[in-house]
Amino acid sequence: MDLKTAKEELKRYQEKCAALGHAMSILYYDGVTTAPRGTAENRARTLAVLSEEEYRLSTSKETGELLSFLDENKTELDEKEKREVELLVKEMNDRKKIPMDEYIAYETLIVEAEDVWHTAKEKSDFALFEPYLTKIFETNIRFAGYLAPGKKPYDYWLNEYEDGLNTEICDNFFGALKKRIVPLIEKVRSLPQVDSGVLFGDFPAEKQRELSKYLMDTIGLDPLHVGLSETEHPFTTPLGSHLDERITTHYYTDYYASSMFSVIHEGGHALYDTGSDDDLAFTVLDGGVSMGIHESQSRFYENILGRSEAFLTFLYPKLTALFPSVGNYTPRDLFRAANRVEPSLIRTEADEVTYPLHVMIRYELEKRVMAGELAVHDLPVEWNRLYKEYLGVEVPDDKHGVLQDSHWSGGSIGYFPSYALGSAYGAQFLRKMKAEGTDPDACLRTGDFAPINEWNRTHIWRFGSLYKPGELLDRVLGEPFDPNCYLDYLEAKVKNVYGL
Amino acid sequence: MDLKTAKEELKRYQEKCAALGHAMSILYYDGVTTAPRGTAENRARTLAVLSEEEYRLSTSKETGELLSFLDENKTELDEKEKREVELLVKEMNDRKKIPMDEYIAYETLIVEAEDVWHTAKEKSDFALFEPYLTKIFETNIRFAGYLAPGKKPYDYWLNEYEDGLNTEICDNFFGALKKRIVPLIEKVRSLPQVDSGVLFGDFPAEKQRELSKYLMDTIGLDPLHVGLSETEHPFTTPLGSHLDERITTHYYTDYYASSMFSVIHEGGHALYDTGSDDDLAFTVLDGGVSMGIHESQSRFYENILGRSEAFLTFLYPKLTALFPSVGNYTPRDLFRAANRVEPSLIRTEADEVTYPLHVMIRYELEKRVMAGELAVHDLPVEWNRLYKEYLGVEVPDDKHGVLQDSHWSGGSIGYFPSYALGSAYGAQFLRKMKAEGTDPDACLRTGDFAPINEWNRTHIWRFGSLYKPGELLDRVLGEPFDPNCYLDYLEAKVKNVYGL
Repeated sequence: MDLKTAKEELKRYQEKCAALGHAMSILYYDGVTTAPRGTAENRARTLAVLSEEEYRLSTSKETGELLSFLDENKTELDEKEKREVELLVKEMNDRKKIPMDEYIAYETLIVEAEDVWHTAKEKSDFALFEPYLTKIFETNIRFAGYLAPGKKPYDYWLNEYEDGLNTEICDNFFGALKKRIVPLIEKVRSLPQVDSGVLFGDFPAEKQRELSKYLMDTIGLDPLHVGLSETEHPFTTPLGSHLDERITTHYYTDYYASSMFSVIHEGGHALYDTGSDDDLAFTVLDGGVSMGIHESQSRFYENILGRSEAFLTFLYPKLTALFPSVGNYTPRDLFRAANRVEPSLIRTEADEVTYPLHVMIRYELEKRVMAGELAVHDLPVEWNRLYKEYLGVEVPDDKHGVLQDSHWSGGSIGYFPSYALGSAYGAQFLRKMKAEGTDPDACLRTGDFAPINEWNRTHIWRFGSLYKPGELLDRVLGEPFDPNCYLDYLEAKVKNVYGL
Repeated sequence: MDLKTAKEELKRYQEKCAALGHAMSILYYDGVTTAPRGTAENRARTLAVLSEEEYRLSTSKETGELLSFLDENKTELDEKEKREVELLVKEMNDRKKIPMDEYIAYETLIVEAEDVWHTAKEKSDFALFEPYLTKIFETNIRFAGYLAPGKKPYDYWLNEYEDGLNTEICDNFFGALKKRIVPLIEKVRSLPQVDSGVLFGDFPAEKQRELSKYLMDTIGLDPLHVGLSETEHPFTTPLGSHLDERITTHYYTDYYASSMFSVIHEGGHALYDTGSDDDLAFTVLDGGVSMGIHESQSRFYENILGRSEAFLTFLYPKLTALFPSVGNYTPRDLFRAANRVEPSLIRTEADEVTYPLHVMIRYELEKRVMAGELAVHDLPVEWNRLYKEYLGVEVPDDKHGVLQDSHWSGGSIGYFPSYALGSAYGAQFLRKMKAEGTDPDACLRTGDFAPINEWNRTHIWRFGSLYKPGELLDRVLGEPFDPNCYLDYLEAKVKNVYGL
């Protein structure tokens, strides 16, 4: 094999992977947005065939020879190709460690699990979902055993979602958060509560759809390449490459803030993915590098920008035009309501301050199940106990408790910490952005996202997965990661909202 | 190879084909329902990879050996397996005759063409679409040359959409229609026109969506396995198997009849597909056998049932509840309006009587382009000339003319005659159904589709593609196909509507 041919083959191989990925993602996407409810098994059969194809392709003799050759000649590769080979070799080696039939069975399992979770959530019936969730945890433990025999299974998966992460780092991180967030919540409890009436009323889905389009446009998503669908549990996915990105939302006709902030959150994911340099498309470097960095962007847009007084004041006239009852309140009321701190049941609806505690509960539960210290069967009871302990709320049923999130049904164990980490990264990005002369508030007052997007594009988006998360953070921040920056940000927000 | 293994392999091979088909269909489906407009190229890349995979799979040495072995041992196969092998051998042999790169290029071309057609139609700009359509016709001619060197290219494709069909049969069929339909239209022209006001007004899309669901439910579609989406040009497609079927529609807020009859039409396709016996799923026998038989079902539900006085009288209270202005008219007004005969521009909106002339125009144009007697460039002029000649209408622009249908952009040349043929099959099925004791009118008066569906299921749907279209017709009718039955039906309808 000569180097030129090998480089072409590398490109061709990644295009094939992207195509298979496209087919598998769109089946998932269809399943949770459009598909009739009785079709999961039909989709699972197709996914089984496609995962087999994916497994065979990535573990084939030809692929092995190609990647070995390139790896041996890596001094001849440019920076991008080197990173591509590194990631593809890891993927190949990982897959080879998992028996093909187990790999396919797991892919099939999560399609079915997603479907059962839907019904279980609707009926608030954990028992229906329990056998699937048990299998999902078991498989994650077993796979971690194949992939990293010496490691604690949960550490293995944490590191998969965020390169470099483990339980020790998480314990420290959450410990630091807890130390300042719990007293902060206590303090808020002692103060008169903010009126959130501006967010509630009667808001037809059609009007909310209009708002979604307006928000997507305002934050700078390209309508030619980013679509919006409706689903039970909002998510974002690229299809094939960052040239086709889909975000999703869910409308509640009595509460527009849910979809409004969810669209901005998913929009942040989509901005990150679609901000990849175009020459990364159809390679393994396309799109965001890790879940932590991804959430840093989505939660940056949702909270730091979306819930800022500057942006909400800018948005106020549009909101009153769509939802006349908003006009009974002032922009300042809107800002305070959107940032009302109040322990609650649902993570995705939680305010910025109590949010990390929702994540911490999931982290602790996952850690214990993965360590064999907690049975899946006991998750609901433990869930409810921790919500009482950390947030002081009573969970009325599993729909508003352990069944609320779709992550576990999709096989994602170890994902949740990314949300809190990402929020903390985001606060530090904000400080850096300001230090470098981009003032988000000044931009948001006129709804001008361009300078903010430009900063993020230049520093983060355009690289896709070229740098490891830790490397990227170093490049962007030029200083160590510091959760106190996030805590300072939260305290300042509370101070503004509650007038401390 | 032993027979038992070969039979298992046959099953497995068809499952793989079904999975690839699923992936390719859902990409198409997504492209015309949900996808953002700038993503066609991204999809085309994935489709190119999947078509290559499909081509390799169906023409591989292993597939060849398997099918040859089974073909040599066909006396050992049951009826279904025999037909499966017959169809798969044909498919394999056909594919082998087309060079792989040309096969893939064509699959890619039609994804891009679909996208360009959309824009061209929007802008009413045929010139934009012309180079794509030229390539599509050229490729169809070239492929026919590979596949059936001795045959006229158009005859080859007619036979592909409806086994046994050719230009001679079509010429005779359309000749017979013309002879009785043209005078019938003349007669209507001399009579006072029917008032169609009941169909026009202000009908919010939300209400029409509710009507769609009601209609799908009423005609007997299983909501667990049949979904509804919105698109520019309504169509129906199974995804993977008949266990996941999708119909589509398009809402005009000033005219509910368009979507209403389109939902019933596409619903007829979906009833046929989903009516396949469950053990046909994931085999080549799954779903409808030909476009002619398919249209016999869709147009049976749309026109013979959907536009009957019995059904529209049953539907009237639901319509008035959704659309109060309908209450200003009587059920009889509704029936007459839904069957108003009037030469018009758009095929899909045409009444039953003028409809076959729309089809005939497309047939004549396709025939001439495929024979090299007409340039694609001249299609708009000829289209407009024939609409004037056959229907007496002036085509104002290409959007309402040659660009109105999506079929050519999807690569379907030779499909259109199926619509007229299917309508004629349907009328003869109706006569047979009545002769066997099922009276549709009696059922429709109470909105009870069950007995009608049962007759169709027993006689047609459950067989999927087990019998060739001609064989199926023989089995169902027990008499030769006779277009006069269709013409009698049309004359009776006109008599009732216009009170002759």
